[in-house]
Amino acid sequence: MRISSNNQVARQSLSARAGNARQIGTQALAVFATLALVATMARADEGMWTFDNPPIKQLKELYGFTPTQAWLDHLRLASVRFNDGGSGSFVSPNGLVLTNHHVARGQLQKLSNPGKDYVKDGFYAKAQGEELKTPDLELNVLVSMENVTAPVQGAAAKAATPEQALVARKRAIAVIEQASMKATGLRSDVVSLYHGGEYWLYRYKKYTDVRLVFAPEEQAAFFGGDPDNFTYPRYDLDFTFFRVYEDGKPVHSSQYLRWNSKGAADRDLVFVAGHPGSTDRLATVRQLETLRDESLPKTLSGLRRRIGVLRNYAALGPEQARQASDLQFSLENSLKAIEGEYRGLLDKTVMDKKQEEEATLRKAVANDPSLSHLYGKAWGDMGAALRNQSARFEKDSYRSLRGSYSRLVSDAISILRYTQEIKKPDLERLDGFHDSQLASLRMELLSPAPAYPQLEEALLADSLQESLDHLGANDPFLQIVLRGDTPQSAAKKLIAGTKLGDLSLRKALLEGGEPAVLGSADSLIALARDVDPMLRAQLKWFEAHVQSIATNATEKIAEARFAVYGNAQYPDATFTLRLAYGTVKGYPFNGTIAPPRTTFYGLYDRSAGFGGYAPFDLPPRFVKGKDALVLSTPLNFVSTADIIGGNSGSPVVNRDGELVGLIFDGNIESLVGRFVYDGRANRAVAVHPGAITEALAKIYGAAPLVAELQGTPFPGTRSGTLPAPLAPVGAPL
Amino acid sequence: MRISSNNQVARQSLSARAGNARQIGTQALAVFATLALVATMARADEGMWTFDNPPIKQLKELYGFTPTQAWLDHLRLASVRFNDGGSGSFVSPNGLVLTNHHVARGQLQKLSNPGKDYVKDGFYAKAQGEELKTPDLELNVLVSMENVTAPVQGAAAKAATPEQALVARKRAIAVIEQASMKATGLRSDVVSLYHGGEYWLYRYKKYTDVRLVFAPEEQAAFFGGDPDNFTYPRYDLDFTFFRVYEDGKPVHSSQYLRWNSKGAADRDLVFVAGHPGSTDRLATVRQLETLRDESLPKTLSGLRRRIGVLRNYAALGPEQARQASDLQFSLENSLKAIEGEYRGLLDKTVMDKKQEEEATLRKAVANDPSLSHLYGKAWGDMGAALRNQSARFEKDSYRSLRGSYSRLVSDAISILRYTQEIKKPDLERLDGFHDSQLASLRMELLSPAPAYPQLEEALLADSLQESLDHLGANDPFLQIVLRGDTPQSAAKKLIAGTKLGDLSLRKALLEGGEPAVLGSADSLIALARDVDPMLRAQLKWFEAHVQSIATNATEKIAEARFAVYGNAQYPDATFTLRLAYGTVKGYPFNGTIAPPRTTFYGLYDRSAGFGGYAPFDLPPRFVKGKDALVLSTPLNFVSTADIIGGNSGSPVVNRDGELVGLIFDGNIESLVGRFVYDGRANRAVAVHPGAITEALAKIYGAAPLVAELQGTPFPGTRSGTLPAPLAPVGAPL
Repeated sequence: MRISSNNQVARQSLSARAGNARQIGTQALAVFATLALVATMARADEGMWTFDNPPIKQLKELYGFTPTQAWLDHLRLASVRFNDGGSGSFVSPNGLVLTNHHVARGQLQKLSNPGKDYVKDGFYAKAQGEELKTPDLELNVLVSMENVTAPVQGAAAKAATPEQALVARKRAIAVIEQASMKATGLRSDVVSLYHGGEYWLYRYKKYTDVRLVFAPEEQAAFFGGDPDNFTYPRYDLDFTFFRVYEDGKPVHSSQYLRWNSKGAADRDLVFVAGHPGSTDRLATVRQLETLRDESLPKTLSGLRRRIGVLRNYAALGPEQARQASDLQFSLENSLKAIEGEYRGLLDKTVMDKKQEEEATLRKAVANDPSLSHLYGKAWGDMGAALRNQSARFEKDSYRSLRGSYSRLVSDAISILRYTQEIKKPDLERLDGFHDSQLASLRMELLSPAPAYPQLEEALLADSLQESLDHLGANDPFLQIVLRGDTPQSAAKKLIAGTKLGDLSLRKALLEGGEPAVLGSADSLIALARDVDPMLRAQLKWFEAHVQSIATNATEKIAEARFAVYGNAQYPDATFTLRLAYGTVKGYPFNGTIAPPRTTFYGLYDRSAGFGGYAPFDLPPRFVKGKDALVLSTPLNFVSTADIIGGNSGSPVVNRDGELVGLIFDGNIESLVGRFVYDGRANRAVAVHPGAITEALAKIYGAAPLVAELQGTPFPGTRSGTLPAPLAPVGAPL
Repeated sequence: MRISSNNQVARQSLSARAGNARQIGTQALAVFATLALVATMARADEGMWTFDNPPIKQLKELYGFTPTQAWLDHLRLASVRFNDGGSGSFVSPNGLVLTNHHVARGQLQKLSNPGKDYVKDGFYAKAQGEELKTPDLELNVLVSMENVTAPVQGAAAKAATPEQALVARKRAIAVIEQASMKATGLRSDVVSLYHGGEYWLYRYKKYTDVRLVFAPEEQAAFFGGDPDNFTYPRYDLDFTFFRVYEDGKPVHSSQYLRWNSKGAADRDLVFVAGHPGSTDRLATVRQLETLRDESLPKTLSGLRRRIGVLRNYAALGPEQARQASDLQFSLENSLKAIEGEYRGLLDKTVMDKKQEEEATLRKAVANDPSLSHLYGKAWGDMGAALRNQSARFEKDSYRSLRGSYSRLVSDAISILRYTQEIKKPDLERLDGFHDSQLASLRMELLSPAPAYPQLEEALLADSLQESLDHLGANDPFLQIVLRGDTPQSAAKKLIAGTKLGDLSLRKALLEGGEPAVLGSADSLIALARDVDPMLRAQLKWFEAHVQSIATNATEKIAEARFAVYGNAQYPDATFTLRLAYGTVKGYPFNGTIAPPRTTFYGLYDRSAGFGGYAPFDLPPRFVKGKDALVLSTPLNFVSTADIIGGNSGSPVVNRDGELVGLIFDGNIESLVGRFVYDGRANRAVAVHPGAITEALAKIYGAAPLVAELQGTPFPGTRSGTLPAPLAPVGAPL
């Protein structure tokens, strides 16, 4: 899966500005994402292009197609960002949004309880009144983009030191965001593209009343489970429908994608509009080496430990399995993705390619005295920043509570910081606590979704044990956290002593502000109070000795790249809206060729081939309903479109802007795509719309939904409940 | 495909004793097969074991199963060698033999004509009288094995030089074979196992009246074509039935395998009895390096050229496509196999493993003064033999006509040599012309199968051009062959001037003996007369400076291996009967798991996934008959049994000795199996018997054949035509 909703590891590596307040103590890893560089010349079908700079030239040359501005605007305004990590699109005039089951998964889990498991069993609201409001889902539609490079870079240019430049940049950004929010009421994010090469103000229409309409059972959405994840050929109905409401009514808009059940044919040109999370296509070789030799081995080892804890917990019983399910899915997904990335960095041909790219750029800079004067030192500076980081990384990466994936611990630190930060002027606050970010943060902290104390305890205990294994008991961080206790006993006491699982307490603390938090006897709030000064000191040190130097260096390298290669580039991914393009096409694999598409036949073949054993068991509905299905209906298909984690749920559209697919994964060969795009084998994997309507009609008895998708009028009671047309959603300001 | 009938490249590398008279000028390549060494300690499921030394210990320890001698004898006597390159088994008491369509392919092609294409369209004899006699197919059943190591090694031990030892060994072998044939009338071959470690006299019951009963259309047998060849998951009905006759009647015997349509379940223990062609598992590292750096690149380049010629020829029209089909299949098959082997040798982990194995053995020898004294020099001697070979290989490998794959040229040289050799005492003849081999040779040379002059001309011209490219026009070989002409013109004249396509001429020349050949004005006979002295001189030089030294060295290394590791070893493959064992089991592939089996569902999925384009087009019978098929019927399956080219057509049997599968291929990961067995991913691919009977019954309307397989009495007229029971076929002598 390209990214899961609540994919915590994937979010760790999103750029800091796109992150949220739960990102604590992740600076060591984050540097590799925030420092990723400007793209070099893109190859055919390569690129995650911003909508202000679409690949017009390539499309014309390669495909004889030139999208109009109206075509681009429509696709942009029909595209949706799932703020908890994923993409989607409007697919009906009545606010119906299509995304992946695995993007919806976090919300499905939060809506579930011991009696009802919507992740496992699926959900269908037969009448509009049955649609289920999600507890804390925020959707964003990108309604405008404004280039603010001049004010941001201008502010930094006046600074005397890299540290002051970092502060000046942040302040300039906060000023712009605040002013925009006040003026428009829209979510306003300044995003750094080409890592400092450009800054843009992105304004989003924000939706927070999002209701669940339809989700298939997990086994249909995720047939083949973790083994088949990130692979192809594939046989998954990984889709879910939500409906977006405003003022208690479905939004009504013409900015939606028309449904095309025929889908795209082999060799057809297709487009993907979505929100790729993060790439490191143009990190320096030294950054990639550090990633390979320092960060990734630690990340993988931690993930494997925590997945072990989750599996053990899930083995205790069906209810424990249900509780662990979402995080387990998310971490297994991350593990497989990062293993693929790590394999990529261990591949000599990949590193040779990166080395050659860098050498070419540096040579061009060195050979031009004016470029050399401006940018020649940047690679050395980056090396210095990485050396600084390495000196502390070995220990600091274990001086963190975030790696526990304990939601309650994360909430405790966020609540503490919230009460401290909001007292400061907006410009002086930590990232994640600016006025423009507070609404989203509060929505998360006040989510009614349940917590599972025993699971939290197990995770926290393992995380503390891991820190102890690497730091030793005398480490100051562990002295604060363990106070001489064992990790197991400390975790037990910390979780037993907290009431943060109660929404009322979280609410009371947020409303009570700093006095309430300082006076609280809650064990996790106390822990946050004790440990936060050290975490803040780490962050400060990191900003001073790594981030500020590295940011300056990457800006310089980005400028050098612009100077040498010009503007036909795309920025590294930043969980902002991008346009990718490519063709439906098989690829060489396993000594033969992977087909451009699969069919329902293949679902039955793969299940029977394993004798029906999990995770290749057929959902009972598909056993019973087999004879009703047209088995030759295309199920999944691949294209060369350049995507990565975060693109999950993205619409695939054809030249006519019709929806012809639903991105849900990349193949195993695409994992190295974080660093390099190889169109020979890198493929985006999508659900075919024909499979969705075939299953809705024949397996799920969801004819009204099919009718809505196909644009026929709402039958029965439904049409009566629709509001009169509203102003178009997300029209440009 | 593991091996094709008439797989000329695969046969090139079979041991010289198992080869036939058409092997001319192949010495440079053959050294790597004939010198392959004794196996080291076998890992679980590894090994191609001789029936005199079955892996009893491993089977007991790993599977708690101990085959009885009767079990082993029955399996051996029900197993069949297809002398033109493949394996098979008796599957009914009435002489019915099961093999692969691609093993039968050569005979199907020879039975075809411009009006009837049995390769493409298949064949079914509804009544016994319609069964088609194959033109030159010889089947062998191994009826006895006798250890003759002492006389063979004893003869060599008395020799003063390696060259004399080579002659002494060959003479001893010829004496044994001749005496056995005289005494028993059976085909009698002395085979070298553990390359000189042991010599065995194998006696075969020989069948030459073999009639075609049933072959499916090519597209069902070879669905997926060259792309899917040597891969899995797979969806091929690669089977064909022959019936063996003696004295004009079907043979009747209880030595057949009972048909089990249920097949084997996941994790079941299974056995494969067949004739693996050749492996180089224990070649020295220097041999493998020579293979990697000298032989294989040349072989691959020549194959690619010749395949290009065949494709161009096939593009001329359907009849040309039909004519080229068999050789094209065979060479494409060889190309893909050898590419996989070459990839294996380029894989550092594979070579590291071989280096480690060799270093371990050499250390053990070096550390024991008595071993060191006897064997310490062997690796150095092998190196010397290879250096000698390298010095001439660059040119000699192009001083050959064999690489043209022209059957008429090959026949010309065989006929010339036949008339010369049979005048000599048996002991002094070239390999391939001993009395014990003459019947098989004559059968080939007098085959009524048609030749295709235009195709022969194109192949010969390309081969001569290749030689010219590498040798230059002044090379003595080309001076003889081209006589100053261009390759194209020379080939045209040579093929235009020959009547060897006429059976009557070949017969007249063989019967007329040396005077007839010396007096013939036929262009190819004249070419053979002119060029053979040079080819013989090459062979002589090769024997003196490479083969004799290398054979001595490998014998010593084999003895060292016995001394260090004892007897729990299996010999490298030699196209003689072997027993492999393993379990039905999926394997890690493509980032996920390959299933233990596929079903008919998968056939329809893969075809639809490619939009039905060739080579993924469904046979029309399978389009029309789909609804009649139980699509969940297992179609192909994999097991860990250790096989290689030549095993095609081998029966897979269960503990009860029942037929539960039909080997037809190895997966892409098995290609490196020529050098090293890796049970994690090396898999044998087999047709499931349930798919055969399902297709016979539902698609082909061949109910009588199903009844015969399932042991129900012959229905209708058929039972009336059966002879009374004969003595059991192939009872031990």
